[in-house]
Amino acid sequence: MLNVDISNIWGEYTLNDLLSLEKETFDAHKLLLDGKGPGSDYLGWMKLPVFEETEEMIRIRAAAKRIRESSDVFVVVGIGGSYLGPRAAIELVMGSNHNLRGKDPQIFFAGNNLSTRAWNELCALLEGKDFSVNIISKSGTTTEPAIATRALKWMLERKYGADEAKKRIFVTTDPEKGALRQMAAEEGYETFVIPPDVGGRYSVLTAVGLLPMAVAGMDITEVMFGAASARRDMEAFSFENPAWLYAAARNLLYRHGKKTELFCSYEPDFRFMGGWLQQLFGESEGKDGKGIYPFPLEFTADLHSMGQMIQQGERTIFETVLRFAPPRKKTMIESDWKNLDGLNYLEGKSLDFVEEQAFQGTLAAHTDGGVPVILVQNDEICDRTLGEMFYFFELSCGISAYMLGVNPFNQPGVEFYKRNMFQLLGKPGYTK
Amino acid sequence: MLNVDISNIWGEYTLNDLLSLEKETFDAHKLLLDGKGPGSDYLGWMKLPVFEETEEMIRIRAAAKRIRESSDVFVVVGIGGSYLGPRAAIELVMGSNHNLRGKDPQIFFAGNNLSTRAWNELCALLEGKDFSVNIISKSGTTTEPAIATRALKWMLERKYGADEAKKRIFVTTDPEKGALRQMAAEEGYETFVIPPDVGGRYSVLTAVGLLPMAVAGMDITEVMFGAASARRDMEAFSFENPAWLYAAARNLLYRHGKKTELFCSYEPDFRFMGGWLQQLFGESEGKDGKGIYPFPLEFTADLHSMGQMIQQGERTIFETVLRFAPPRKKTMIESDWKNLDGLNYLEGKSLDFVEEQAFQGTLAAHTDGGVPVILVQNDEICDRTLGEMFYFFELSCGISAYMLGVNPFNQPGVEFYKRNMFQLLGKPGYTK
Repeated sequence: MLNVDISNIWGEYTLNDLLSLEKETFDAHKLLLDGKGPGSDYLGWMKLPVFEETEEMIRIRAAAKRIRESSDVFVVVGIGGSYLGPRAAIELVMGSNHNLRGKDPQIFFAGNNLSTRAWNELCALLEGKDFSVNIISKSGTTTEPAIATRALKWMLERKYGADEAKKRIFVTTDPEKGALRQMAAEEGYETFVIPPDVGGRYSVLTAVGLLPMAVAGMDITEVMFGAASARRDMEAFSFENPAWLYAAARNLLYRHGKKTELFCSYEPDFRFMGGWLQQLFGESEGKDGKGIYPFPLEFTADLHSMGQMIQQGERTIFETVLRFAPPRKKTMIESDWKNLDGLNYLEGKSLDFVEEQAFQGTLAAHTDGGVPVILVQNDEICDRTLGEMFYFFELSCGISAYMLGVNPFNQPGVEFYKRNMFQLLGKPGYTK
Repeated sequence: MLNVDISNIWGEYTLNDLLSLEKETFDAHKLLLDGKGPGSDYLGWMKLPVFEETEEMIRIRAAAKRIRESSDVFVVVGIGGSYLGPRAAIELVMGSNHNLRGKDPQIFFAGNNLSTRAWNELCALLEGKDFSVNIISKSGTTTEPAIATRALKWMLERKYGADEAKKRIFVTTDPEKGALRQMAAEEGYETFVIPPDVGGRYSVLTAVGLLPMAVAGMDITEVMFGAASARRDMEAFSFENPAWLYAAARNLLYRHGKKTELFCSYEPDFRFMGGWLQQLFGESEGKDGKGIYPFPLEFTADLHSMGQMIQQGERTIFETVLRFAPPRKKTMIESDWKNLDGLNYLEGKSLDFVEEQAFQGTLAAHTDGGVPVILVQNDEICDRTLGEMFYFFELSCGISAYMLGVNPFNQPGVEFYKRNMFQLLGKPGYTK
């Protein structure tokens, strides 16, 4: 079960300072539960994790089965949470090289950039392959996914004819409104729902994340079981609740000048979970001139790139380190009689033992260097721990943002570049 | 040709403030050229880019040819610059999906983590494949690559027998010293050189980067031509020199409270170049309680994750945006008579035109929001522009770090975690 360890954060502030935030933490959590804080139209994510399989999940698994039978490739079109959520889940559990294994359908992500190179690369990868497409967008008019959708739709129609193409397009969108909902109705695409009260960065436990996960070969029932367990376990109104501890600790650190949070994992496949965390916290908290800057790092690789600066740069950072129980399948370090590399002292040790000592050594070095470290520990990486993490971080983020005094569920700043871009593109309704 | 545009950085500071840094910039550049600053034992990178092909490069191309003929997979073992350099180069020019194309050998990177999951994944990917290994390490005793080397060596010996295995191991290391040099001599591996006066994060234009690039199918002569052009063009002792402009601008911003630099590119394949930049600047500057925190972002994807915070979070950041000339092969946006997505206003426009407007719109939005933006512009992505960028950023980093008043070429802080780890692992010579 997930737990939070704050025993390595202390410096000029102590446990008493943290405990003095109890009322604030309580109030923030209560605002969420009562739906009385700013942005309370977007609290649907709190009710998504359930132990019983929903009808939507049954339909998702059925669609995934058909897609896995009919397609070498599944193209997931989306941006923001509609991209980072499914990609984070699939890379963490199935591995970042999942597309090389040849067992499950390849999953490619499109509509998350405007790069011509990336588009040409995708077209080359689709050459000669049977593929299906999942369009994920609440509105259907966001520029990047809309452009990719238009092009992929035509590729499918040219390849399979209009009727078969329709069976290869799966739409995840608002249940009633929007251009994509209308398109799906007119064309007869199978659709899945993004509830209107769930924002993009909190949507991974809807069809947004679940359909791509299921196509990739993951067990979405397990993911939801993990999330539902977290939902049940994190109802406590006290510092026994790991979400309380985490939200309070990061606000305490921020108030003491720690302006940047490094999300560190020792698993290379955690890379896009780092991206998902970055969006969740950055977009929820980064407003009104406030917020902790969240950036993901990958240890031990980045100990050999950013380690120097973490150890001795400006003391304005803290780390949140994600730890998982070691895998059951061990890799042992063998003896070599020549011992030119001097590694024989590790003979008979497992790789995860070495990794654990690297983690402990780094923890001691960074805390000694004035970098507070929050630990988020969990069981071995699997569908269930993934679901648990998703809900834990969403809940923590909601509490933390209310403690910071911002609306965790809006993103007014994102409109500025869009408005400029639409003016430059000459979009109807946007004049200079 | 690469150029730097600082016309979008102004705020409470003006061009005069930048010009007042001329003497400092001059002094810093001169320290590098005269080899009189701290760390001057490590200035070998300044002389690496040359127009004439060196003997080492000819040997690299010959080895690459043999590897490409004999191997489905090339495993590159290294950490820090020995990992980020080659990976950045290959992903940018050959695409991050280069391993899926089936044309060139697959390139996998190992020895850059201690994850058992990652190791098991690599073993599965090597199953049934012919492979060769490149071990990149100055010393040969760094824990992560040494563990991977030991295991991969045995895999090769078991698969091919000792004699054939020797032909499949390529070593890039110090010309004389160290465990890896000794191992190569005893075993008879083909070796390439990391000059003793070139540090890890400045080593990409040695065999460290060049051999993996050549195996991946890149033209290393072009890479070196680009770097040599940059070296020639960036000798100017004035603000005509783009490295001067860049180094002075980022120091100016830092002194005005801009503590974090976001390296932003609109190309998804730039991801690991971002990692390379992060190491280059972070490890060179992050010491003595000083330094700009460098973090890479990917636009437009991250406009939908970090865009909110960039626009309206704490005003302690600036952006360095990497721009490339649009690709010659255009992708056009086609008409759709239904126009449900409302995209017909883009009919007949190219994707790179839309991307350019997104860039311009974002530039205006972020500068309006109080985020200074430095532009680094270059020609279309290719081997030559890659080489140009490598040298430009290395030179800029050297100048910038001297302006900051730190030694750009050491990394004393990296030792702390290693010492702790060795104690915990019981390494001979390390006692508690």
